[in-house]
This record gives sequence, structure tokens and C-alpha cells, in this order.
Amino acid sequence: MVDLNTVDPFVKVLIYLIAILATAKLGAEIFERMKQPAVLGELIAGVILGNLVLVSHNWNFFEPMRSAILSDHAAVNIDMLAKLGIIILLFEVGLESSVRDMRRIGFLSFFVATVGVAATFVLGYLVSTIFVREVPSKILAASPNFDVRIIHVFIGATLCATSVGITARVFRDLGRSQLNEARVVLGAAVVDDVLSLIMLAAVSAIVTSNENGAGISSFVIAKLTLIAVGFLAGALVIGSLVIPHLVEAAAKFRTRGLMLITALVICFGLASLAGMAGLAPIVGAFAAGLVLEEVHFRNFGSDIGIKNLLGAVSTLLVPIFFVQMGVQVHLESFLNPSVIGISMGLIVAAVLGKQACGFIVGRKGIDRLVVGIGMIPRGEVELIFAGIGKSLGIINDEIFSAIVVTVMVTTFVTPPLLKWSIGRARKPEAANLT
Amino acid sequence: MVDLNTVDPFVKVLIYLIAILATAKLGAEIFERMKQPAVLGELIAGVILGNLVLVSHNWNFFEPMRSAILSDHAAVNIDMLAKLGIIILLFEVGLESSVRDMRRIGFLSFFVATVGVAATFVLGYLVSTIFVREVPSKILAASPNFDVRIIHVFIGATLCATSVGITARVFRDLGRSQLNEARVVLGAAVVDDVLSLIMLAAVSAIVTSNENGAGISSFVIAKLTLIAVGFLAGALVIGSLVIPHLVEAAAKFRTRGLMLITALVICFGLASLAGMAGLAPIVGAFAAGLVLEEVHFRNFGSDIGIKNLLGAVSTLLVPIFFVQMGVQVHLESFLNPSVIGISMGLIVAAVLGKQACGFIVGRKGIDRLVVGIGMIPRGEVELIFAGIGKSLGIINDEIFSAIVVTVMVTTFVTPPLLKWSIGRARKPEAANLT
Repeated sequence: MVDLNTVDPFVKVLIYLIAILATAKLGAEIFERMKQPAVLGELIAGVILGNLVLVSHNWNFFEPMRSAILSDHAAVNIDMLAKLGIIILLFEVGLESSVRDMRRIGFLSFFVATVGVAATFVLGYLVSTIFVREVPSKILAASPNFDVRIIHVFIGATLCATSVGITARVFRDLGRSQLNEARVVLGAAVVDDVLSLIMLAAVSAIVTSNENGAGISSFVIAKLTLIAVGFLAGALVIGSLVIPHLVEAAAKFRTRGLMLITALVICFGLASLAGMAGLAPIVGAFAAGLVLEEVHFRNFGSDIGIKNLLGAVSTLLVPIFFVQMGVQVHLESFLNPSVIGISMGLIVAAVLGKQACGFIVGRKGIDRLVVGIGMIPRGEVELIFAGIGKSLGIINDEIFSAIVVTVMVTTFVTPPLLKWSIGRARKPEAANLT
Repeated sequence: MVDLNTVDPFVKVLIYLIAILATAKLGAEIFERMKQPAVLGELIAGVILGNLVLVSHNWNFFEPMRSAILSDHAAVNIDMLAKLGIIILLFEVGLESSVRDMRRIGFLSFFVATVGVAATFVLGYLVSTIFVREVPSKILAASPNFDVRIIHVFIGATLCATSVGITARVFRDLGRSQLNEARVVLGAAVVDDVLSLIMLAAVSAIVTSNENGAGISSFVIAKLTLIAVGFLAGALVIGSLVIPHLVEAAAKFRTRGLMLITALVICFGLASLAGMAGLAPIVGAFAAGLVLEEVHFRNFGSDIGIKNLLGAVSTLLVPIFFVQMGVQVHLESFLNPSVIGISMGLIVAAVLGKQACGFIVGRKGIDRLVVGIGMIPRGEVELIFAGIGKSLGIINDEIFSAIVVTVMVTTFVTPPLLKWSIGRARKPEAANLT
């Protein structure tokens, strides 16, 4: 193995990128062959890369790589690439739905999503009160009045966002995307993303304001939540008015590559505005994606669609984020019984909370269980929450690892459960048809 | 303007990327409308961004941005993105020609290229002896025996590589790509790139070994040149045997995005091997491009070709490199008469040196002047040389600025001169036809 201490910093960047991309894609391939989501393979690739140091402390390779992937203050700044990766990812997620879709989704999906988020939040909060008894000493040193309930709020919020990708994929693989249940779940998952990002925006602002000694009160929470809702609503309203014209104007230019650059500049623009408003930059990137639609780019006359071009950039950058999340999981921490306990608590909260979604749609010819199970998978938004919580210092290694486990378990169990529940739900219908 | 001192480092990354990409594309657009190469617009965008600080010292914006773009040791590591940009750029340049093409180009192009490189190198060396009289004190402090001739060698080598893009574009725009002169020039420009990269590899190794006190002797130069030639030849030979099979194997996998990742991992792989062998990583990236051909990727069954996917990544990253080069130009330094002198000297050497290419093809029904003028433009390879020379400390701000000016002037003058010379050369032929 190479002794990385003797290598030029930029060559290190290249070597780490090779290690990250190659193991991520190997992991993705193995999981896809096992009919599991590729993203799990990328996460586990990260867990392996991050923990190889356990196998061999002597190699001058894994430890420098591990710290290069995690640190954001170095010549070898892999963390910056991972952060660009989540910006692009949330932009792509936003692009998948438009403001117009959101209006069409209608009351039912909105109601389903809100009930699911509320129930999951409450359960997550309760699980947190069991396992988190005190504020981390690092936080207390900085702000002695830090309220432990903020941590409960943060963990509750973390559990809320359904990762629509897995469920959409299972419905599509079964040729069932046209089911009423599928439409409700996919619509609700979009609303979920929006609600979660508002919660993330509000909770991060609360943490920061609490650290600055502003204290926590219903008033402060309400004010910061309003700022978050206001930013998103403002970005969507003003964005819908301004951004299409901006894209139209750019399409009149002739220089090569301008379509992709226009999309990226709009994405980075709203992301940095969100950042300067004290929110997470991904909130802005997601809003940019919601405002933009593929049709806005038709005047560029490009053979290759904007989603494919963005896809090339995200192919490079997004796996770096998932591997980075995996690298942060300390396998040692699973020898700690409390990690196992927290994981089990969070998984139960995540699964049960979303069953509330099923209960409120039970009477409309829609199968409760299919909806409830379809809402189970958690994914990138949870991981982003967890990463932010860890960097803010309000969740420790144990909780971080437990959240990653929750993401993995909920994602693993959904495809088989969903297949089973769809089969079960359709049986009476099939009986009716005969 | 935003006070960047109060903003989160990652939000700064986003803001700088917006500034860089937006001004680069604006510059590119303006230059294309003036029928000039887009890359000049990107360079000048960089010059403007880098020198806005002259206009307003008070704004807490331009100075932090300037240092973020140039420094490679910070949370906001734009330099790393620029370096990834040149790796991708040289990979793309390499992809434009294949090892098979190189064999087909034949003796004439090879001979033309070699004579042009040799003549330009000698003239560049001589110009350097006039203007560079002593080793920079920073270098002398580190290695007191540093030989000033190494600087002459470096500057001579910097001037050698023809940038084929400009010339190819002019021939194509005139519908003259099938001219004998066009084939000779384009073939020779490929050989030029290879020869220049060998020289860069050798010269950087010589600088480093000289800094380490190994001294400079014909023996050392010969040895290091051999290492450079050996690496490139080895990469091409072993690469041609191994890499196509690697790509074939990867094409059997099913996970999304693997085609692009395979290409990037091979590119980063050879680049980091070059880096570990003490050569510039771009030498490896170029070799990877030479070895790979579009046809190797056919088994991935992708709708979108590998060049288009790489194009999306380079659309994002490559302008960052050109802007960064522009940012390093100190406009103040043009008040310094010696910068004007060096620029003029280098331009004369760059233009006259390549006329040697014309002289040796004069008797084969090929117009000397068209070939000589077609070889004039300098571009990315010069800028990469200049960047490396500056980071090694062997060229100062004045010479760096003069090299950027040389790139700009040679690129500006070529299109009109080439049109004129093609028209002149074709007149007798037209007379023959009547």
C-alpha cells in the first residue's frame, strides 16, 4: 500500500476519489444483484472504507483517507465534494417534481404526509427522551443553557422524511405505478420532503440561536419556523416568476455548455441564499429544483436533456456523499448496547409513525397497509440531517450510527414487505373480477 | 455586496462558483460573438475577477475570493476543483486522438512537430536568457546551487505546445478540414502535445531533483527525460493491453452511471500513477485519454456517449481552471516595462519557432505559410506549464503574466491570419483549374 505521507496533496485527492468511487460502485453493483437498492451498497462501501483502519492500524493509508473524507479544512477537501454532491442530489430530487405537480397532488397526499410526519415526529421525540438524557458536554461548554428538548426535536425531525426513490422503484418494478396507493404515496413523499426541509431549516436555526444564548421558547421556535416557511414559500413564488425568464434569457446565448451552467448557477444561487438566511443550503437547492422544469430548457436546443447532464455531474459527486456518511459509522459503537437500543427505538418509531398515513386513507378503496409500508423507507434526507446534527455537535457518534442503521433497515425491509402487501391487497379485487 | 467573513465556508464555495461560472460564460459569450475563441473570454473573466480588488479595496468580497481561488489549503478549496478541471480537460484532449491515430499520422506530421518544438524551444530559451538573469531568491534560499538554465529550459518548454482547438475550428468554419495543410497541422499538434508533456514531465522532475540538491548535469537530464518517455510509453503500451479489458469487464456490471465512473477511475488512476512517479498528473490523464476510445464503451449500451457525459463534468470544472489562470494575472505588472518586453520576446519566439514547421514541408504541394500559421496558437498546455512553474516558484508574476499574454495574443491573431493565408495559397490552384 502507498505511504500517503510522501504524496502530493492533489495526487491524494485523485487516489481517494478512486477508492471512493470504485468501492461505491462495487457496493452498488453487489446490492443491485441482490435486488436491493444501490444506495445501500454505497453506504456500506463507506462503512468498510471507514473501518478498514480497525483491521490494520499500521497502514499509512486508511487513517489519512478517513480524515480527508471527513475534514473540511485541508488541502485534500473531499468533504467539499460531498457537500456539492448533496446540493446536486437535492436539486435533482426537486427537479423530479414541479410547483405545478405540488398543486395537483391535492389535499389527500398533503393530509397523508402531514399526519405521517406529525406521528413520526412525536414517536421520534419520545424515543429520544428515553435514550438522550443530557446535552453533550461539548455543547454545554459553549452554551450552558442548551435545552435537551432541542435534541429530541432534532431527532424527531430527522425521522420524518420518506425516501420516495425506493418505493417508486418497487412500484415500477412490479408494473404497479398506476395504483391509487402508488399515487398517494409518491405525492405524500414529495410533501414529506418539503415538510422535512422546513423542519430542518427551523431546527438548525433554533440550535444556532440557542447556542448564541438566545434561549428556546415557543416564540423563538415559531419565529424561526416562520422564517423557514417564508424562505421556501418566497423562493417558490418569486422563483416561479423570475427563474423561467432567466433561463429563457440564457437560452439566447450561444456559448457551449450554457444550459448546464445556467441550471447549476440557479441551484447554487438559491442554495447560497438559503445558507445566508441561516438555513441549510440544500433547502435552496431543493427549491431551485421545484421551480425549474425540464421544459424551461427546451430553447437551448440541446440533444441531451438537462437531467442527463446533471446526472453526469451527480454520478461523480453523489456517491462521495453516501460513502462519507458510511465512513462516519464506527463499527466499534455497535459493541455498545445503547447503540443497539437506540437503533431499535428509532426503527420502531420510523415504521409505526408512517402507519398513521395508512389509517387516514382507509375508507377510499385504498389499502392502508400498502400506503403505510410505502412510506417506510428513509434515505438521503435522514443522512443529511444526521450529518448536520453531527457537525453541529448535538448528536453523538452513537446516535449518528443508529440513524444510519435506521436508514439501512427501513430501506432493506420495504421492497419485500411492499410486494407482499400489494399482493395481499389485490387479492380481494381479483376475487371481485371473477 | 456580501461580507464574506460572516458566511459559512461551504456557502462561500457556492458563491465563488457562481461568480466564476457566470463571469466565465459571460466572457465566453462576448468573445464568441466577436468570432473569437470562447476560452479567451474565460481567461479575461478571470483577469477581471482577480483585479476587481484594484477597483475596490474596501469590499470584503474580492480579496477573500481571490485567495480562495488560488490557495489550495483552505476549507474553501476552489483550487482543487480547478485541478480536477485540468485533469478532465487533458483526458478529453487525449480522447480526441487514439494510439492508432498516432501511428497513422505518419512520419511527416511527426517530423513537422519535432522540428517546430525544437525551434520554438531554442528561441524560447534564448529569449529567457535575455530577460531572466537570476534565480528567484525564494528558490535560492531553498537550493543555493539552483542553475538559472533550468528556468530557461522551463520557459523554452512552455512555449512548445500548439493548441490544436483554435486551428481545427478555423479550418472547419472555412469548410477546409480536408486540406493537406489541415491534416499535417492537426496531426503535428497531437504530436506536439505528447512532446510537450514529455518535456513538462522531464523539466518538473529536473526542477524537483535540483531543489533536492542533486544538481543538474547532462546525465540527470537524460535520466529524467528517459523516465518521462518511459512512463508515457509504458502507460500507452501496458494501457492498450489492459485498459480495454478493464472497460469490457466493467460493462458487464449493471449499476447506473458506471460508464462515466469507469472512465474517470481510469483517468484518475493513470494521473495518480504519473503523480507518484514524480510527473505532472495531467501526463497520466492525457495518456488515459489516448488509450481509451469511444468504441471501448459500446457495451455499456448507454444512450448518451462517454464524451457527452465527460463534457458535462468538464462544463462545470474546466472554466474554473481558466478563470483561475486569469485571476493570477496582475494587471499592475503591465505597468512594468519588463513584462511588456518579456511578452513581446515570447510572442516572437512562439510565432517564429513554428514557422520552422512550414519550411520543412515546402516541396510537397503544401503551403508553408498555412502550416506555419496553423501551428501558432497556444492554449491550455502553456497555461498549465505556467501554473506549475509558478507553484514551483521558478517563474515569477512577471513571466507568468507574459505567458498568459502570449497565449492570448497567439490565439487572437491566428484566425484572421489563417483565413488570409489559406485564401492566398489557394489562388494559384484556382488559376490551375481554369
